[in-house]
Amino acid sequence: MDYSKFLSAEARAMKPNAIRALASLITRPGLTSFAGGVPSPETFPNDELADIAFRLIKDNGTVSLQYQPTRGNRNLIQFLVEYLRDKGMSDIAADQILLTGGAQQGLDLAARVLLNPGDVALAVIPSYIGGLAALNNAQARLVGVPEASDGLDLAALEATCQRLQAEGTPAKLLYTIPNFQNPSGVTLADAKRDKLVELAHQYDFLILEDDPYGELSFDEAAPAPASLRSRDRHGRVIYLGSFSKILSPGLRVGWMVAPAELAAQFERCLETAALCPSVLDQAIVAEACHSGLVLNRLPELRKFYGARCAAMLEALDKFATPDMTWTKPTGGLFIWLEAAPHVDAESLLPHMVEKGVAFVPGRPFCLDGSGKHTLRLAFSKETPAAITAGMETLLKGISALTSLAAQL
Amino acid sequence: MDYSKFLSAEARAMKPNAIRALASLITRPGLTSFAGGVPSPETFPNDELADIAFRLIKDNGTVSLQYQPTRGNRNLIQFLVEYLRDKGMSDIAADQILLTGGAQQGLDLAARVLLNPGDVALAVIPSYIGGLAALNNAQARLVGVPEASDGLDLAALEATCQRLQAEGTPAKLLYTIPNFQNPSGVTLADAKRDKLVELAHQYDFLILEDDPYGELSFDEAAPAPASLRSRDRHGRVIYLGSFSKILSPGLRVGWMVAPAELAAQFERCLETAALCPSVLDQAIVAEACHSGLVLNRLPELRKFYGARCAAMLEALDKFATPDMTWTKPTGGLFIWLEAAPHVDAESLLPHMVEKGVAFVPGRPFCLDGSGKHTLRLAFSKETPAAITAGMETLLKGISALTSLAAQL
Repeated sequence: MDYSKFLSAEARAMKPNAIRALASLITRPGLTSFAGGVPSPETFPNDELADIAFRLIKDNGTVSLQYQPTRGNRNLIQFLVEYLRDKGMSDIAADQILLTGGAQQGLDLAARVLLNPGDVALAVIPSYIGGLAALNNAQARLVGVPEASDGLDLAALEATCQRLQAEGTPAKLLYTIPNFQNPSGVTLADAKRDKLVELAHQYDFLILEDDPYGELSFDEAAPAPASLRSRDRHGRVIYLGSFSKILSPGLRVGWMVAPAELAAQFERCLETAALCPSVLDQAIVAEACHSGLVLNRLPELRKFYGARCAAMLEALDKFATPDMTWTKPTGGLFIWLEAAPHVDAESLLPHMVEKGVAFVPGRPFCLDGSGKHTLRLAFSKETPAAITAGMETLLKGISALTSLAAQL
Repeated sequence: MDYSKFLSAEARAMKPNAIRALASLITRPGLTSFAGGVPSPETFPNDELADIAFRLIKDNGTVSLQYQPTRGNRNLIQFLVEYLRDKGMSDIAADQILLTGGAQQGLDLAARVLLNPGDVALAVIPSYIGGLAALNNAQARLVGVPEASDGLDLAALEATCQRLQAEGTPAKLLYTIPNFQNPSGVTLADAKRDKLVELAHQYDFLILEDDPYGELSFDEAAPAPASLRSRDRHGRVIYLGSFSKILSPGLRVGWMVAPAELAAQFERCLETAALCPSVLDQAIVAEACHSGLVLNRLPELRKFYGARCAAMLEALDKFATPDMTWTKPTGGLFIWLEAAPHVDAESLLPHMVEKGVAFVPGRPFCLDGSGKHTLRLAFSKETPAAITAGMETLLKGISALTSLAAQL
């Protein structure tokens, strides 16, 4: 039977995940992998979480194994109110917070509630694939804004907004990951942040601020700049947070901060989308937060990923050829490598996998189809020693293949 | 700031949950509650699940605390393949199964992937509110089909299909809960099931078969009739299962069975909607299934809910007035009470809450706005003794209030 006639317009708009299509290549055992954009399981506090889960189920299964209201675990929401206050967001009350089954669910809720087919959504080039997919599934018209080494190009953003207004299709939403962004590792400079919020107000769009990596600044003395949400006096910013990178992604717990009216609308959408995300996961994370486990571990996590990033940057300094450039992240999990313009990262990948190294080609992150010669390199999975060796293989390999190609 | 101009058509179509609006009334402490359609926490195997969760996190946090593929836990999918084979569905392979964060998520995925705004979706009157909401959020045009004491009225269904075809708006989907349905407790008779699947083929629609209660037949010797899916040789049925009523709803684990092509499409939608549902919850449920915990407990669960249903039916026999009728479920969690036609269950509710008894008015379950005089009575929460006492209060209360109203 042919089911295509039963598919909705939304289903027809859904694109296969380009990274998923590479899964059989990049998940081969034995590879040195810079591919998976996931936290290292070495950072998971297994023993502590096992104890917490045991007690929550054994002593309080009546609550932790039962349905709960869609809005989410009250203790965790209360923790977030205090946490956000400490981050300079003292205006956020519980009715502005919604717990989600990971930040990805928040992206989807925001896209569903805010975007009609054809609405213009702005996104940084490059951007996280899952964020672009959420906008795409809402059948928004995606318009790209380039990124400089200090983040989103504000002049280009303003010019784009003017053009869109003149064309009668003003932007409704901007999707951005201001801190240590996936895939580029770039951070939006402190000095540009107030201006970005003002532009949202001036050109009447909302900002979807996705911040899963904000706590992972490698330098304890230099945390990520204050969030866009903390600078927002106009009610323009919807903020997405996550425990995936600072505790565990298998526990699916993220959160949204939004004006109360929108938070209620997201909650209504979530109620039908899932009734409630995992009650046990939220209870575990609430306990991990209140016991101090989450925040106390941050210095250790920052060191852990900082050492891996340093190893990758050192290898780049040592083995990269002069036709390559790359970002120098100060936090997060990713470095973005631009090879020489004639390099095709997608055809490079199988050759590199043969040599034992995996990465993700950059083009799927670029909504305008650019980025053919770019690579996303995650430094989260491998040890510093493996990173050094793997980067030598990768960079020498690129160089050998490109010079071979030049000779042919 | 006024956010209404930012809302999508989908968001504007979302209706507030009518039961939620009653929450402050029906969740007052101290009430004898027939309101909440949730399993009894007395049935949760806290000790066993605490041990399972502890071991999974402590010994295998690398897996259970990490992301996993969207499709879901392979061990649990394999268990379901064998479980479905034992239920007469030996044609179902792993690529036809998708794990979801509860069956509600499956309803939402199905609605998103299959329905365009304006598409006709058929649903039984009455039907589960969360199922109707999923169809409604997809902005489908909902068309009701009445229910008899042996389930969906097939003659009315066929007449409706003919009328819709003649009008050029044929039905695309039928939403139905064939076993011990929420809210009515009615089961679709065995003898009507083959015919329903044939009608789907004849009138070219898909069936969304929602079956969270199918294992809860009170009589061990008389299980629920074989599913619609097990009779489907045309690829017309999408089947939704859940562990919420037979293990724990706080662990958010449900599953969809669909033709492989549609299962892949639902997976793609779920990937963007949530990346993956809770990894820990799925691992716990997989272990609970493979260890025998889930299936071994079913006889005990059936007795547990059977005793409560019997207590409620006995109280109805004893205290109901001749102008009342009610369903006689052979499984599940619900009885549907029709009071005299002039009774307004919604205005009755606050009076009954004053007397210490809560229920849910039936009208929100009826997509055509009928059911004003109906009540959904869940027998899952209270002990048999509390059910007897609460039903006496409720039924005498209805009777007193209606005769008082008649005098005024």
